[in-house]
Amino acid sequence: MATVTGTSTAYSTDMDSASGSNIIHRRAKSPNGTVNEAGKKSINRRTQRYKHVFPVHASSRTSCLSPGAENPPNFFGFRNLMVLMLIVSNLRLILENFRKYGVLVCLTCSEYRRQDISYGLILWLSVPIHLFIALLIELVAAQNALGVLKRKSNGNGGTKQAEQIRRRFRWTWYYIAWAHGINATLNLVVTSTIVYYRIHSPGIGMLCELHAIIVWLKACSYAFTNRDLRHAMLTTAPPDSIPELYRDSTYPNNITLQNLTYFWWAPTLVYQPVYPRTTHIRWLFVAKRVAEALGLVIVIWFASAQYAAPLLKNSLEKVFTLDIISIFERVMKLSTISLFCWLAGFYAGFQSALNALAEVMRFGDREFYSDWWNVTSIRTYWTSWNKPVYQFMKRHIYSPLVGRGVPPSVAQLLVFIFSGILHELLVGIPTHNIIDNPTGVAFFGMMGQIPLILLTDPLQKMEGRAPKVAGNVIFWISFCLIGQPLAAILYFSAWQAKYGGQAKLL
Amino acid sequence: MATVTGTSTAYSTDMDSASGSNIIHRRAKSPNGTVNEAGKKSINRRTQRYKHVFPVHASSRTSCLSPGAENPPNFFGFRNLMVLMLIVSNLRLILENFRKYGVLVCLTCSEYRRQDISYGLILWLSVPIHLFIALLIELVAAQNALGVLKRKSNGNGGTKQAEQIRRRFRWTWYYIAWAHGINATLNLVVTSTIVYYRIHSPGIGMLCELHAIIVWLKACSYAFTNRDLRHAMLTTAPPDSIPELYRDSTYPNNITLQNLTYFWWAPTLVYQPVYPRTTHIRWLFVAKRVAEALGLVIVIWFASAQYAAPLLKNSLEKVFTLDIISIFERVMKLSTISLFCWLAGFYAGFQSALNALAEVMRFGDREFYSDWWNVTSIRTYWTSWNKPVYQFMKRHIYSPLVGRGVPPSVAQLLVFIFSGILHELLVGIPTHNIIDNPTGVAFFGMMGQIPLILLTDPLQKMEGRAPKVAGNVIFWISFCLIGQPLAAILYFSAWQAKYGGQAKLL
Repeated sequence: MATVTGTSTAYSTDMDSASGSNIIHRRAKSPNGTVNEAGKKSINRRTQRYKHVFPVHASSRTSCLSPGAENPPNFFGFRNLMVLMLIVSNLRLILENFRKYGVLVCLTCSEYRRQDISYGLILWLSVPIHLFIALLIELVAAQNALGVLKRKSNGNGGTKQAEQIRRRFRWTWYYIAWAHGINATLNLVVTSTIVYYRIHSPGIGMLCELHAIIVWLKACSYAFTNRDLRHAMLTTAPPDSIPELYRDSTYPNNITLQNLTYFWWAPTLVYQPVYPRTTHIRWLFVAKRVAEALGLVIVIWFASAQYAAPLLKNSLEKVFTLDIISIFERVMKLSTISLFCWLAGFYAGFQSALNALAEVMRFGDREFYSDWWNVTSIRTYWTSWNKPVYQFMKRHIYSPLVGRGVPPSVAQLLVFIFSGILHELLVGIPTHNIIDNPTGVAFFGMMGQIPLILLTDPLQKMEGRAPKVAGNVIFWISFCLIGQPLAAILYFSAWQAKYGGQAKLL
Repeated sequence: MATVTGTSTAYSTDMDSASGSNIIHRRAKSPNGTVNEAGKKSINRRTQRYKHVFPVHASSRTSCLSPGAENPPNFFGFRNLMVLMLIVSNLRLILENFRKYGVLVCLTCSEYRRQDISYGLILWLSVPIHLFIALLIELVAAQNALGVLKRKSNGNGGTKQAEQIRRRFRWTWYYIAWAHGINATLNLVVTSTIVYYRIHSPGIGMLCELHAIIVWLKACSYAFTNRDLRHAMLTTAPPDSIPELYRDSTYPNNITLQNLTYFWWAPTLVYQPVYPRTTHIRWLFVAKRVAEALGLVIVIWFASAQYAAPLLKNSLEKVFTLDIISIFERVMKLSTISLFCWLAGFYAGFQSALNALAEVMRFGDREFYSDWWNVTSIRTYWTSWNKPVYQFMKRHIYSPLVGRGVPPSVAQLLVFIFSGILHELLVGIPTHNIIDNPTGVAFFGMMGQIPLILLTDPLQKMEGRAPKVAGNVIFWISFCLIGQPLAAILYFSAWQAKYGGQAKLL
């Protein structure tokens, strides 16, 4: 309560030397040479002979928190306090969980069915075959196009012949589109059927379904891109209609096994004959990213088994009684762990794993996400958190639709519906939740983004900081604090309703 | 996943008009006129005829979270998320508490003993009398000093006479100091004895003890300040040894009932004959501050009864078993509510109540605290959170000691020991915790500040942001996350050990 700096007196009076009495103060030593502001002022104004009369209250001042304070303080310290409180409150919950349940994580006790694993392996190996079938289709199409081109250069290129070429192309594309469609759809249908009826474990099922969707999207992009490239070749379109970047590998030189294999492994869903590449592989970078990804996956697995699983099981009773306050309480408790898993999973997937893969593939463009945590509108979130999917949707659905005159808002709605279907496939199929017990949470979750976009779009355009903070807070609340935990509870309760006899409640 | 802006094509080729085929895109309408950066680039580079060939991956880029990213993102959104998580986690705990205990707050069921209230009232009315006794002592001293001065002006002021005056003054001060000492000490001793043996309720006891300590400190300041003023008058010290501010009320003109009454009610512990004053009372300001203080007191009372009390009772078993992990877990759980009560209590007391009182008293200097939440060393905390006490310690203990040649570090240590004794009086006496069961937590808590100061002082002097953050974090952890809840548990457990039979455990 008393560390005072710089109250030294600059002069001494006759009294000082005359008497050693306890009334008279000796010359004060400057404690540490530094002088605080109040001290400085007082030294300038007068030297301190009588310590007990020092005018502490020398002028009128407001409290720094009062309205209209001269120097409102900053709150740097409260930011630190908040981080601390977050750490402390979660540390406490983890401790509480250990005391209640002991260690729940167990390497040997997860009983995956043998059937699940064998079907999973078969799917992982067979799904990419569809990409190579797409290559075969494209080879045929290219052959056909080259034939057309040959005949065209033989003829004199009258208007009549041009019309004929156009018609031929249209009819050829009709067959090629059907072939691609059947090939790609077969992939999705076969995988979904096997996952739904043969793979019990939702984890294995989701990995298979995710793989199938990725391959499906890649096959679609491959077909669409080559369709346009082929058309450009046939019509001898102006040279600037094909990007500069592709000049090294003009159609149909890009229809090769090597080119497709690169696209198969490249961390993108969008086919380009040529990608920006790096010059060499930094293996240390790869090792670091792989270590990050593995570490995070282990942490997420641990957190789910130790923390999320008992919580979800606890929450079920509440959901079945439909007690709103209880569900609300459970959602709030779940939000902490689901947020943690989401952030860790995002980092593991989009930063660590995709960067490691890109480095190995010497894939130059690493923008797999942008700073979605700062978004001030839900719209921006969906354009920034998952760039590979966003780029696919933009290039192969939204832009072509808008290009054909569909109003942008309708095109957007169609994209969201399509995306909702994909989300439902990804979650509903592995949890065996579409035919018997159609919850459709993932689908309707995606549809629910639309009103949120309409709500937050005006906020983003407003001036000042407050609407931006409001938009960001709406994003976090709707997406991470309510959306994800609520979806987790609903899917888990549907799962328990179906398999409740098999899985024991804690 | 797909909100795309600005992909309009600027020109149309012959193909566009020639055919309505689904291969050929119509001229795209600009969706909403705005063009994002990537869009702009692509438009400049080439017009988009073939939507499906758009080079999404046009150049090499790093992920924004990668080490060495060109534009590392800011984390504005995570700040918002943290605040949200703090609110959510506490809301959840409050909800849980209600479901477990129901409403625990009850206006009529707190059974204060009749004896507590009557003794409390007697103490509140009688304690200020000691201030008026101090006035009587000062009146006698002033009379005496005026007599000396008269004799001095009659004589010729030789060195012999000056020496005589000095001796006289010293002897007189000896008697006056004794009188003041007995008066002030009697106040503390009587109050402490009654609180310890007659007032059971720690709340009422603490209010009485706090009042007595405040009056005691004011009486000490009054005596010390007037001692110096008197000495200055007797020795005809150089005019600049008395602050400019006091010129309107020179000694002994300040020794009046009115002047003392103002000091009695002024929001300061440091006596000055004259204070900076405001011109008028803003009653709206007073009303707002009073409303704040009342509202916060109600909230704190509610939080304590509803939340802190059952938690403390729960914690006791753990403390008695001396299970370290359990105590740690309880301390963490308590830290949230104790931090809340501390922050709310600080605001209610130092911002709302003292500002209201200052406004009514037209007291100009409202610096009752500075921004202690930003401190980067524990030393600064103790000089900034409670300015009235700090100013007392600085003016009447630290500065005089240093002025007499005591090394600053020793003077500081003495201040901390003194402050520790006051803290122990304030907490130990009302909880009946000093004679039978001397825990001394408050005292040793104050002593524990010294090693923390030695630890954090170097951090404050270091350059850069990291040491400052570290210092601030050490402050929050030691003071709010560990210190206060630990002290609350220890005092409560000592209370239960003594009165366990009377107070039921939940």
